[in-house]
Amino acid sequence: MSDAPKTPLLDRIAGPADLRHLSDRDLRQVADELRSETIHAVSRTGGHLGAGLGVVELTVALHAVFDTPRDKLIWDVSHQCYPHKILTGRRARMDSLRQKDGLSGFTKRTESDYDPFGAAHASTSISAALGFAIGRELGAPGNGDAIAVIGDGALTGGMAFEALNHAGHLKKRLIVILNDNEMSIAPPVGALSGYLSRLYAGKPFHELKAAAKGAIGFLPPPFQEGARRAKEMLKGMTVGGTLFEELGFSYVGPIDGHDMETLLGVLRAVKSRADGPILIHAITKKGKGFRPAESARDGGHATARFDVATGAQSKTLSNAPSYTKVFAESLLQEAAADDRICAVTAAMPDGTGLNLFAERFPARCFDVGIAEQHGVTFCAGLAASGMKPFCTIYSTFLQRGYDQIVHDVALQKLPVRFAIDRAGLVGADGPTHAGSFDIAFLSNLPGMVVMAAADEAELRHMVATAAAHDDGPIAFRFPRGEGVGVEMPERGKPLEIGKGRMIHEGKGVALLSFGARLAEVEAARERLMARGITPTVADARFSKPLDRDLILGLALRHDALITIEEGAVGGFGSQVAQLLSDEGAFDTGLKFRSMTLPDAFIDQAGPAQMYADAKLNAGDIEAKVLDVLGIDVLEKRA
Amino acid sequence: MSDAPKTPLLDRIAGPADLRHLSDRDLRQVADELRSETIHAVSRTGGHLGAGLGVVELTVALHAVFDTPRDKLIWDVSHQCYPHKILTGRRARMDSLRQKDGLSGFTKRTESDYDPFGAAHASTSISAALGFAIGRELGAPGNGDAIAVIGDGALTGGMAFEALNHAGHLKKRLIVILNDNEMSIAPPVGALSGYLSRLYAGKPFHELKAAAKGAIGFLPPPFQEGARRAKEMLKGMTVGGTLFEELGFSYVGPIDGHDMETLLGVLRAVKSRADGPILIHAITKKGKGFRPAESARDGGHATARFDVATGAQSKTLSNAPSYTKVFAESLLQEAAADDRICAVTAAMPDGTGLNLFAERFPARCFDVGIAEQHGVTFCAGLAASGMKPFCTIYSTFLQRGYDQIVHDVALQKLPVRFAIDRAGLVGADGPTHAGSFDIAFLSNLPGMVVMAAADEAELRHMVATAAAHDDGPIAFRFPRGEGVGVEMPERGKPLEIGKGRMIHEGKGVALLSFGARLAEVEAARERLMARGITPTVADARFSKPLDRDLILGLALRHDALITIEEGAVGGFGSQVAQLLSDEGAFDTGLKFRSMTLPDAFIDQAGPAQMYADAKLNAGDIEAKVLDVLGIDVLEKRA
Repeated sequence: MSDAPKTPLLDRIAGPADLRHLSDRDLRQVADELRSETIHAVSRTGGHLGAGLGVVELTVALHAVFDTPRDKLIWDVSHQCYPHKILTGRRARMDSLRQKDGLSGFTKRTESDYDPFGAAHASTSISAALGFAIGRELGAPGNGDAIAVIGDGALTGGMAFEALNHAGHLKKRLIVILNDNEMSIAPPVGALSGYLSRLYAGKPFHELKAAAKGAIGFLPPPFQEGARRAKEMLKGMTVGGTLFEELGFSYVGPIDGHDMETLLGVLRAVKSRADGPILIHAITKKGKGFRPAESARDGGHATARFDVATGAQSKTLSNAPSYTKVFAESLLQEAAADDRICAVTAAMPDGTGLNLFAERFPARCFDVGIAEQHGVTFCAGLAASGMKPFCTIYSTFLQRGYDQIVHDVALQKLPVRFAIDRAGLVGADGPTHAGSFDIAFLSNLPGMVVMAAADEAELRHMVATAAAHDDGPIAFRFPRGEGVGVEMPERGKPLEIGKGRMIHEGKGVALLSFGARLAEVEAARERLMARGITPTVADARFSKPLDRDLILGLALRHDALITIEEGAVGGFGSQVAQLLSDEGAFDTGLKFRSMTLPDAFIDQAGPAQMYADAKLNAGDIEAKVLDVLGIDVLEKRA
Repeated sequence: MSDAPKTPLLDRIAGPADLRHLSDRDLRQVADELRSETIHAVSRTGGHLGAGLGVVELTVALHAVFDTPRDKLIWDVSHQCYPHKILTGRRARMDSLRQKDGLSGFTKRTESDYDPFGAAHASTSISAALGFAIGRELGAPGNGDAIAVIGDGALTGGMAFEALNHAGHLKKRLIVILNDNEMSIAPPVGALSGYLSRLYAGKPFHELKAAAKGAIGFLPPPFQEGARRAKEMLKGMTVGGTLFEELGFSYVGPIDGHDMETLLGVLRAVKSRADGPILIHAITKKGKGFRPAESARDGGHATARFDVATGAQSKTLSNAPSYTKVFAESLLQEAAADDRICAVTAAMPDGTGLNLFAERFPARCFDVGIAEQHGVTFCAGLAASGMKPFCTIYSTFLQRGYDQIVHDVALQKLPVRFAIDRAGLVGADGPTHAGSFDIAFLSNLPGMVVMAAADEAELRHMVATAAAHDDGPIAFRFPRGEGVGVEMPERGKPLEIGKGRMIHEGKGVALLSFGARLAEVEAARERLMARGITPTVADARFSKPLDRDLILGLALRHDALITIEEGAVGGFGSQVAQLLSDEGAFDTGLKFRSMTLPDAFIDQAGPAQMYADAKLNAGDIEAKVLDVLGIDVLEKRA
């Protein structure tokens, strides 16, 4: 939090078109002001800081050289898009970033014409850009150049390789900018990272800068020199890049991604001369220009609101440990007792809490890169070898490994443990990060065991359950954020597979919770008791296998049964409905309702607000009970 | 079909151990006999022929040199495993291949200790082998070397690249054999293919053979020479391989994959000396040694039973066009009328019928390689550019692109058309190829439209519906095999989105079918009418959006409502249950049942037999109706 910086030149930029008649020197000043403005904006809202600071010059140069929005600029992951948003007409709304009804923290097609393709998961940009490029070639109107900006971390994702392979085959004009900051969120892993480093290890930037100056010399006007000379210039800048060239790309670089003159020179040369797929390798520094971010291990990846002068972040006091921390500590306990336990993360050691595991048991902890497909099957191989792998992936990213879960894990009944963080709605990161579908896509897999933690003590028991379960795959999900403050057991104790637990015996209506809505269910029960209604409350613990005795017993003893879960239709409630219908429980008029996430992608807001939008808070559960007990909808309709 | 070939040496091989005391000359003879035996076996059963014939020598050499099953030999895709099965104790059962209760057409952990990791989808082997290798390093007992055999086609799958990247980073001993036959199922696509060709373009094999002879000279005994000399030998064989070397692998090759002496020499050298990840590049010919396969465009990929002398395949007469053909022809009609329509396949131009599209509209047809992730997002980019892409992927392989469907397509409401062939159970290819989950994993995505074709005429209309629907993503699924022989409309006519159709008005019980079980539902109705029961029959057409009026009307007017679909729990029936419960239709005692695929992976058999195992045939539907009308399960239990 600070006074707004002075940005005289930036203040005159209403949109990218205003950049295009500025001098190169002015563009450099715009970049400097844009950096200050970005730091200022994020200091007030929190959010992704380091990635944006690393591409300030690139953002200015791209919008100055290319004809956005006709030219399609696609940011991979897009957490680096804040400077882009400031330049593309959204500066005044930056204080609403990542808040309800505010700007998204990512690019979003519905937000701006300058966001031709949204993102939040990694490694998609080259595929999307290739789609735009081919659309242009096929005559789809309004499509100019297609430009993907992708980080070195995102390049480890297999689909980026698939896209390079296809683009190199098609040979159409396509521009890929490799934004190489030696950093995804965590420091990089994978052989590719070493390769990229070697590409620029022995080659000082100034030579390349000289080459770029040469380019500026003969540009503009863009078409007065022959293509031959431009190609030679580009070729002269190539110092490595075999891997990309073997895949059919022209390779330019490495260049200093913070040197405006170099960037403008290279981009202008590429714009005027490229006739096939081209990869520009730009070296940048995550957090560039803001010392606290530059010096942070993660390059200032994401931050709370902070003081610009000191970098000190404002923290909210927490009442309970985060689910992530409970998971991580519980897994350490299990791993200390069983040296077959190992842990796998896909480029999220900090977010998943596995950084603790990596410190304590480095030989048993594996960061596979942004590579969920490989991560899942690597775990399957580990399990087949006799190890006990915990595959630790956020719900939303586990979607990337879905086929591997089906084909490599479930079909072979291999005991891979899936630890699924960020299950349900996640707040400021919005719909792209929501963990909405895992209950559904796991619970209908034969032989899979699926648990959800109602609180942090349950989570500890579920970690122990997963460690003990060696008879096939098992998954447990838990939400983002803090636990509810229950007393923690010293050690987790394995739960009986497929057994839920009764919380409160009541009558008339039974509330059957699966996962972390239990606290809201309890609150709803309090409200209902004030009205003289005493619902039964149970925690299913398992969406697979279901606790048949518990559920059929609830159905028999109550007029109404309501399931509650933090997931989409097709998951727990659907499994329960299938059981109840198979067993004829509906035949006698059981009033059944299934409260799930609604059939909509819910925009970012605070988690409680998002659950209010989803109608899954205590008041919504109370209302559902009252509705079920009071009103027969079909009769009303008739 | 032919007399059994003479195989005197092979007859003495009970298992791989018997190979290990044979001379190299005898091993070559074993390979020759194994090739004859493979041709003979497949001539009687049909199945995958070409891939197996391409790896006969490799199979013998690997089992002779390595200590299987302690050393883990993992075949990617594994349709090339027939010679492996013959050598590993399953020769006598080869006539049961791909039949009910018989041998699987793929490797399968439950079938043999020599199958440490099953497969059927592509590109998983390196990940799995790395898991075994790391398990070995961590002390898991019983694990020797880990060897992945992967084709050049499978290498285009991103997860193979993810695994190479991770393995190169970990630097542990791991053996990858690139079985390069310039062919996946179709001729290869992608820049990588060109790269691989260049690796051996100018380098005659005989030089390499000489190098391998050198290797044989100093082996065995394996440990008498220094590691230095072996490394030099391996290094001397390296003529290219930069891409793999940049990823941290030692590269050996290319070598002639049909030259037993070379193979044995290289494998022995690698076995005794490799101390990190190593990639052996073997050039093979798909269909090798059987002229009809060698000369086929697809290398004799899959075949019906055939005559060994002529290669002539025995065909069964078909009564109706295949769904695939109807899809392909219908799409051609639409594409002829609308030049925004384009088509994307992931290495399955023939299987999906898009070979017709590629012939007629080559500029609008894209084979992306075995790269479903990229394929889906490439389609999203095409749609964002204004094109109308049909993303044509089998149900089981669409699982590979699930996150891309959620994140790139559905979230952005982009009008990608998903044409989902091989929906439901598929017969001889068994559980790995079953299309069981797409209804569930698509129907809970906000904004998605999901259709299933009840017959081939419906399919034609659904292609037209998808072409016309420009308001968000839309999917339609259809089964493997022939249609039911209904009269075909000249052209497809767009269906009203979210509207089903009444087939027969009846009373008491309503059968609500989604997809190609409709014929079985109709047959069940015939049987029931013979018993004096006249069920209503309706075709839902859409699992999303549901036809609320139709379904709630059926619920109101009948005592019982039964849904039928060719998919797992969580799909159509669950969507219907959610609607009915939301609307209180259960409150008054509607007898609801949802007939889905069972909670089990169903082993290969004829499709009708598989559906019998799944209890989804006419007799099962009839029995369900009788059960619902006659017996109240909860009362019986009470």
